[in-house]
Amino acid sequence: MKQSQLFMPTLREVPADAEVKSHQLLLKAGYIRPVSAGAFAYLPLAKRVLNKIEAIVREEMDAVNANEMLVPEILPAELWQKSGRYQTYGQDLYKFKNRQDRDFILGPTHEETFTELLGGDIKSYKKLPLLVYQIQSKFRDEGRPRFGLLRTREFLMQDAYSFTADNEGLDTIFDQMEVAYTNIFNRVGLDYRIIDGDAGAMGGSTSKEFSAPAAAGEDTIVYTEGSDYAANLEMAKDFYERVDRSDEEQDEMTTIDTPNAKTIEDLSELLDEPASSLAKTVVVAGPEGELCAVVTTGDFEVNLVKVQNALGLPEVDMADEAVVKEKLGAGFGSLGPVNLPEDVKLLVDERAADLVNFTAGANEDGKHFTGINWGRDVALEDEQIGDFRTAKEGELAVDGKGKLAFTKGIEIAHIFKLGTKYSKALGAQVLDSNGRNVDMVMGCYGIGISRLLSAITEQKADDKGLVWPAAIAPFDVHIVPINLKDEDQAALAADLEATVKSAGYDSLVDDRKERAGVKFADAELIGLPVRITVGKKASEGIVEVSVRATDESFEMTVAEAVENLPKWLSK
Amino acid sequence: MKQSQLFMPTLREVPADAEVKSHQLLLKAGYIRPVSAGAFAYLPLAKRVLNKIEAIVREEMDAVNANEMLVPEILPAELWQKSGRYQTYGQDLYKFKNRQDRDFILGPTHEETFTELLGGDIKSYKKLPLLVYQIQSKFRDEGRPRFGLLRTREFLMQDAYSFTADNEGLDTIFDQMEVAYTNIFNRVGLDYRIIDGDAGAMGGSTSKEFSAPAAAGEDTIVYTEGSDYAANLEMAKDFYERVDRSDEEQDEMTTIDTPNAKTIEDLSELLDEPASSLAKTVVVAGPEGELCAVVTTGDFEVNLVKVQNALGLPEVDMADEAVVKEKLGAGFGSLGPVNLPEDVKLLVDERAADLVNFTAGANEDGKHFTGINWGRDVALEDEQIGDFRTAKEGELAVDGKGKLAFTKGIEIAHIFKLGTKYSKALGAQVLDSNGRNVDMVMGCYGIGISRLLSAITEQKADDKGLVWPAAIAPFDVHIVPINLKDEDQAALAADLEATVKSAGYDSLVDDRKERAGVKFADAELIGLPVRITVGKKASEGIVEVSVRATDESFEMTVAEAVENLPKWLSK
Repeated sequence: MKQSQLFMPTLREVPADAEVKSHQLLLKAGYIRPVSAGAFAYLPLAKRVLNKIEAIVREEMDAVNANEMLVPEILPAELWQKSGRYQTYGQDLYKFKNRQDRDFILGPTHEETFTELLGGDIKSYKKLPLLVYQIQSKFRDEGRPRFGLLRTREFLMQDAYSFTADNEGLDTIFDQMEVAYTNIFNRVGLDYRIIDGDAGAMGGSTSKEFSAPAAAGEDTIVYTEGSDYAANLEMAKDFYERVDRSDEEQDEMTTIDTPNAKTIEDLSELLDEPASSLAKTVVVAGPEGELCAVVTTGDFEVNLVKVQNALGLPEVDMADEAVVKEKLGAGFGSLGPVNLPEDVKLLVDERAADLVNFTAGANEDGKHFTGINWGRDVALEDEQIGDFRTAKEGELAVDGKGKLAFTKGIEIAHIFKLGTKYSKALGAQVLDSNGRNVDMVMGCYGIGISRLLSAITEQKADDKGLVWPAAIAPFDVHIVPINLKDEDQAALAADLEATVKSAGYDSLVDDRKERAGVKFADAELIGLPVRITVGKKASEGIVEVSVRATDESFEMTVAEAVENLPKWLSK
Repeated sequence: MKQSQLFMPTLREVPADAEVKSHQLLLKAGYIRPVSAGAFAYLPLAKRVLNKIEAIVREEMDAVNANEMLVPEILPAELWQKSGRYQTYGQDLYKFKNRQDRDFILGPTHEETFTELLGGDIKSYKKLPLLVYQIQSKFRDEGRPRFGLLRTREFLMQDAYSFTADNEGLDTIFDQMEVAYTNIFNRVGLDYRIIDGDAGAMGGSTSKEFSAPAAAGEDTIVYTEGSDYAANLEMAKDFYERVDRSDEEQDEMTTIDTPNAKTIEDLSELLDEPASSLAKTVVVAGPEGELCAVVTTGDFEVNLVKVQNALGLPEVDMADEAVVKEKLGAGFGSLGPVNLPEDVKLLVDERAADLVNFTAGANEDGKHFTGINWGRDVALEDEQIGDFRTAKEGELAVDGKGKLAFTKGIEIAHIFKLGTKYSKALGAQVLDSNGRNVDMVMGCYGIGISRLLSAITEQKADDKGLVWPAAIAPFDVHIVPINLKDEDQAALAADLEATVKSAGYDSLVDDRKERAGVKFADAELIGLPVRITVGKKASEGIVEVSVRATDESFEMTVAEAVENLPKWLSK
């Protein structure tokens, strides 16, 4: 393609509100423009990248016999009322009415849509398994869209859904999809880790997250050098072995005055005890005001996702201090598990459950109890005990094979074993081989297609601009004649364009009347893998080849350049 | 692909509310399912057709150097307030608020979006012409969605926009796009006509509509056998040559009682005069209540689109009788051009403008004037005279080369010369070669991608089911082994699948455990171009080839069958 016919508005300056590298560079290189907060136009170069990514996704989906479909983006509210998500999804759900005053939403995801469709037509296990997917715009009314394509209100996703008659069928497809996604990201040329994800958010049992390590990432990936263990911070587990301390002597429980101990650190200093032997109590609230006190040792933070999943609630948050004070009788500095009101649940982290003769707030401002013991002073059942803490860097990992390290990552894909949550809610049943009606067993799978542009940019771009992996570059080769008025250069550039094309590569020819410096700067900015400069040595048939990723340059004949393209453009 | 892994839910019965053939068959053959009124899911077979259509569109767009992009579907209201369409587009526009209570719409079309984007980055005529397009879901809150994919609330469109520095540039691109669209529809395999369309709706000057003749069409195409002339009924023109009757003797204007003449037919009978020599007056109203009396001869109907365009209003409709009576003093049966109130405009069809000594309503119920003459009794300027009538079947066409005939058609594409309407409203200017700021000159172009599935079905399908043109069929070849437990059949089917693939065609293999009758019925219903049945003669290497479009069948060897594929699958 001729660059003079390409809408490629590169900028000299970057808008001041672009905070992260990928947002800055994608704007500067003329790949994206905002249309409203969190909703971007993909300009021609970006659309070419998206098309190449989508082609890779389609090939890998074909390989696992997935069926491509396309469902509406406007969905009737009834569909989401059936699953309950119309109420629980929260403010991120775009709701609107049509001219007949009926309620609709803009789909942020399509578990309900596909469950209703497949459930309506598939009535026997003999028609299963089925794997369906689509590539489509999704909508989420983010409170604070930011970081360019990383957090947007409208984004492109590939979303896939599997339907099987039993859990074994799901396990098989889940594993196939993990391989398919692995192939996709390997081909796209991205660095990524597969980590344990939070399945609870989708109402499922198991999930794996594909995360691209990058400083701009909003997620924390927890991993170890010593093993394959990796998890999202919300799910990461450190190693802890329960201790039986039942034969230790129990002190008497007494009240102490602690008017200046507002934090665990204050208390630790006051009592000269390590935070790890003190109990920290926080109170969380569910969406309908359900309260639960969570006790951890003082050296750990409570993990809201683990608590939420244990409580089986769609979301939980820290309770308001005013609410807590009204209910428990004290503010945040003096809470504890002793004498909790009956309608406040209690969860205890396993490390805290092994404390004896410990100190905790007395649920009276400025007072703590010391010498508390579980069982004697606070009833505690086994099912109230679990891992409710956020893992810390440097702790031993749950597999015992190495210390936990943290890095920032961008979530690029997520695969879930959903089970029967949606099929049950929407009545999607099949007859099994015994002639009984069973709920279909589902999995769901998603890739953040548009977000990949940012993830790749965060990982690959350099000071001069974007650097595209060959498999998804907008064009393979950038042909840059210095002066098209020079007949030798014009002829050689035309020859090169034709030769590159017949070798099976696409090229962009910079036919603009611009200075060489402008052309080179734009070429580096937009980041095509190979640049072939046609300059003064055109009369000798010599060109200069520059490889964007390695910064190497070579002078060679056109024939040599084209011969070497497969090396530089290996996909 | 194996049919057992394809989600292809064919039906034995068709839902009763599917009125037209394409709606019935696309449901029955498992191509589409409704998710809400006017919003359909495209099941795997339909998505494969869409993908093939989109690939053809992309190739033809590449050929005219068009830039593919993708813009958001949620648009800020401000964008449409700038063009005025936020107010004037009417109830079909989906409006909603985000969580911050800001107003948004779902894009039904994107003139404003692209004008803002290109206007923001293109500042010089040197960067023009530019041609951009996208393929994307569009939204229109239809009052009465119907006929399957023909009138929906969410639909796939290819929408393109051209930006040039002057009208000559627009003319060139407009012609190129007409060729590109012609190529697309030729390749897709559709019968269509290019007709004069209504450019006024988009605020432009010239438009051409691509219309697919089909009984289910909602538009009337007007054409002649004798020439290329073809137009949408709203734009069709019959032949009429003005007559100079200024030297005819003028009668005196007199009032007559016509209490029983409610219609032109009544009046014609009462006065024993042909309707063609009587004046019929209707009053139309604009969106802000602007009134205009329109006079035609009694044998023609007033054409609201022509009137709307002449008045330069976004829409007009027949005025309410109560409003008319209040303003003009009489109800519908007694209206006329004499003594109109000053704020009621007057337009006169050219045929009516040539009447002398004619009769029209007196704007007093039950009274008419006879002996009216233009100029003497009613002031009439040349610019008030024009073609404001709806053409009639059997009249001579405007080119004088044949009589007008009517047929029903489905609008499948529309191309418009927009001029500067949007660039002016959104301030999209460039410096021209003289260094002056000029509004960019725009064109817009659109193909109803999803609607094509219905149009093709209306034209091609037969009693047994769908019949896909080879270029866009979901699969090229349907391989139907009768009994896969027969080793010869299984081996030959597998061999055939591989051979067809290596010949460059895709195939669907019916590996289901169904009776031959069910397999054949499904095969005919889904309508792949070539079916190859592997049956009892498999042991001799003989198969049966059936060509769906022609109903021909041949027995031959696998080698012969594959050799002949290019003939049956010529694209």
